[in-house]
Amino acid sequence: MRFLHTADWHIGKKLHGYDLLEDQAFILKQILTVAKAEKVDAIVIAGDLYDRSVPSEDGVRLLNQTIAAMNLTEGIPLLAISGNHDSATRLATGAPWFAHSNFHLHTRLDQAFTPVIMQDTAFFLLPYFEPVDARIYFDNPDIRTIHDAMPLVIDKMKENFDSQLKQVLISHFFVSGSSRSDSETKVEVGGLDGINGSLLEDFDYVALGHLHNKNALNLANARYSGSPLKYSLSEKEQKKGVWIVETEEKLNLQFIELTPLRELQELQGTFAHFLDPEIYQQLNRENYYSLLLEDRSIIPNMMNQLRKVYPRVLQVERLYGRENSQQLSVKKLKEQTPIELTEEFFTTIVQSAPTSRQQKWIEQTLHQLMKKGGAADAS
Amino acid sequence: MRFLHTADWHIGKKLHGYDLLEDQAFILKQILTVAKAEKVDAIVIAGDLYDRSVPSEDGVRLLNQTIAAMNLTEGIPLLAISGNHDSATRLATGAPWFAHSNFHLHTRLDQAFTPVIMQDTAFFLLPYFEPVDARIYFDNPDIRTIHDAMPLVIDKMKENFDSQLKQVLISHFFVSGSSRSDSETKVEVGGLDGINGSLLEDFDYVALGHLHNKNALNLANARYSGSPLKYSLSEKEQKKGVWIVETEEKLNLQFIELTPLRELQELQGTFAHFLDPEIYQQLNRENYYSLLLEDRSIIPNMMNQLRKVYPRVLQVERLYGRENSQQLSVKKLKEQTPIELTEEFFTTIVQSAPTSRQQKWIEQTLHQLMKKGGAADAS
Repeated sequence: MRFLHTADWHIGKKLHGYDLLEDQAFILKQILTVAKAEKVDAIVIAGDLYDRSVPSEDGVRLLNQTIAAMNLTEGIPLLAISGNHDSATRLATGAPWFAHSNFHLHTRLDQAFTPVIMQDTAFFLLPYFEPVDARIYFDNPDIRTIHDAMPLVIDKMKENFDSQLKQVLISHFFVSGSSRSDSETKVEVGGLDGINGSLLEDFDYVALGHLHNKNALNLANARYSGSPLKYSLSEKEQKKGVWIVETEEKLNLQFIELTPLRELQELQGTFAHFLDPEIYQQLNRENYYSLLLEDRSIIPNMMNQLRKVYPRVLQVERLYGRENSQQLSVKKLKEQTPIELTEEFFTTIVQSAPTSRQQKWIEQTLHQLMKKGGAADAS
Repeated sequence: MRFLHTADWHIGKKLHGYDLLEDQAFILKQILTVAKAEKVDAIVIAGDLYDRSVPSEDGVRLLNQTIAAMNLTEGIPLLAISGNHDSATRLATGAPWFAHSNFHLHTRLDQAFTPVIMQDTAFFLLPYFEPVDARIYFDNPDIRTIHDAMPLVIDKMKENFDSQLKQVLISHFFVSGSSRSDSETKVEVGGLDGINGSLLEDFDYVALGHLHNKNALNLANARYSGSPLKYSLSEKEQKKGVWIVETEEKLNLQFIELTPLRELQELQGTFAHFLDPEIYQQLNRENYYSLLLEDRSIIPNMMNQLRKVYPRVLQVERLYGRENSQQLSVKKLKEQTPIELTEEFFTTIVQSAPTSRQQKWIEQTLHQLMKKGGAADAS
C-alpha cells in the first residue's frame, strides 16, 4: 500500500488578516498533482480540513471541489477524519454516500474501531474526540481526560487487528514530546492533551494531524504531515509538503515538498533599503513578508508606504527592539530594582543613559510613587 | 410515476423564539412514513430545506439524518432543489456523490436543463436563482429581473422535452396570483418576484416551493405543497401536508394531511378562563397557543402566569384592542379631523367618551399645537 499523508489544510484560514483561499486552492491542486505523479493508492487527510467549525461559503466550495476532484474525477480513494478545528457534524454532511466511491470520512469515535481495509493495510480512522465522547462510548464515568480514554481506544482497535495486514492509524492529537508552532490551537483542556507515543507502537504507521511541523515528532512509526502552507510566522523556516508512505515490506517514508503560490519570508534591512527599487525589483513582492527593520527612528505612515511596495506585509518588527526584548529575561526583571529598571527603559528609548540630573528626577519620582503606594495600601 | 411533493421544511426555524427542531424531526419522519405507505417512486423537495443559509449544527444533523433515512435506508429516490432560504453552496455539499443512489440535488441554474428521467417522467430541477445567475448563464446583460430570465429558462427546458415523457418542473418561486402567509420571505428584489402562471402551462405538473399555503395557487397543473408545519400565526387555519402526485394517464393529485407533534391554535377567553384547571386540563397544553384575551383590565405578570400553564404561548392579543384596530381603516383616518381622531383615541383608551370639559381641553390643546406648528413652519 502506497499512500499520500497530508493534514491541517485549515481551509478558510486567514494570516494576519490576509485571506489564504487562493493560496490554499493552489496548494491543494498541487497535492493532487503529487498524488497522481506518485501513483498513490489513497490520500490520507488527518484532520482540520477546515479552519473553523462554520467555514465561509468560499471555504465550503473549495473543500467540496477539492475532494470531488480527488475522489470522483481522479478516482483516488480518500481516508479522512475530522480535527479539532472542524465541526464533526457539519463535515459529516454527505459522508454516508461517500464510501461508495472509496471516500471514507470518519467524524465520530464509534467509527474508529472498524478498519477500512485497502490491499494489505487496515486503516483505523480515529477522528478528534473529547473525553465526554469516550465516556459515553465506553459507558465509563471514570474517563475524565484523553489520557484515560486513549488506552481503551487503542486496545479496542487492537481487538480488530488482523495479523495478515499492516495496521495504520489516522488520528489528530498531540503526542507528548512533539514540538509546537504558533498556529495550532493551544487548548489543552479538551482532547488534545499530550498522548504517550508508546501507546502507538503496535501500529505499522501513524498518520498524524494537528501539529504543523513535519518534524514535530520523530517516532520510527509515526509522523505529522504538517500543514501544506505556513500558517504562522513561527513556521517560516519549516519545509511544507506531504509524506508518501509505503507500508509494503518495511515502512518507507518520503517527504515531498510543495511550492506555495506565495512564499512567507522574513526580510531584514532599513526602511530605505526596503523601498529601494533596485532591491525590491529583485524580490517577488507578492509574497507574504515579515520585515525586520534596522531603523531606530520613528517612521511616519510606515505601514502604508511599505504596503505600496509589498502588498502582503504581515508585520514589521524593529531589530533594535527585538534584540532588547530578547535580552530581557523574567529572571533579570525580577532581580532589578525599580530604579535600575527605569534607567534601563530610559536608555532603551532615549538611546543614551540618563544624566545625573535625570537620574535624580527618576529617583525622586519613584520614591514619591512608592510612598503613595504605601499610603494607599494603608487606607 | 407516482411521487410525493413536499417543500419548505425550513429546518432550524424558530417560531416566536421557540425552537421547532423536535417538531420538525417528528414531521419529517411522518413524511417518510407517508412516502412508504403510499409506495411512491420518489420524494420531491421543492426548496427551503433549511431556514437560513448557515443552519445550526442540530439543523444540519436533522437534515443529514432525514435524507439518509429516506434515500439510503429506505432506498427512495429524492429530487431536491435549493430555495431562497438555503445557501446553494452549503447545501450542495456531497451532492456529486448523491446521484449514485438516485438522490438528485440541484443548486445551480445550469443544472436545470438536463432532466432527471425516472420511468415515464422527465424532472426539470430548477433551483432558486437570482437574475445575475441567468445574466451569466445566458451571457445576456439585458436580463435584469426574474421576469426577463424565466421565459428563457423555460424555453431552454422545452428544447429538452421528450414527447414520449411527462414533463415535471420542480421549482421555488412566487407565481403571480398566489396568496401569501406571513412566514415567507417578502423580498421581491431578488428572484422571487411573481412569475406568470401561463409560462408553466406546457408542464404536466409543476411542483412548487416557497409559499406555505397549499391553496396559495390553483392552476390545473401546478401546486405549492406548502410547509409541513405551521410556521406563522397567519397559517393557523391552513391544512398542512404533502401532495401525492400521479402523472400516469391524466394528472391525479391527492393531499395527505400531516399531524404535528404540537398543534398551533388560537384560544379565546378571559384570563380567569385560561387559568381555570377545568378548562386547561381538557387541552393539550404542550401546543403552541395564540391567546385572544377578552379582559380589558391590566393584568400584572400576565405572560409568566400564562406560561406556567401553557408553556408555549406565542402571543397574547387583546380582543378589545383587536376589534378597534380592525375598525380603523386608513381611509377613515384620512377623513377624520384631528379633534375627531383625538376623541376617538380617548374613547378607546378610557373606555368612555370625553366629557364636555375634556372636549374643551382637547380642542384648546390641539389649537395651540397647530398654531405652534404654523409658527415653526414660518421660522
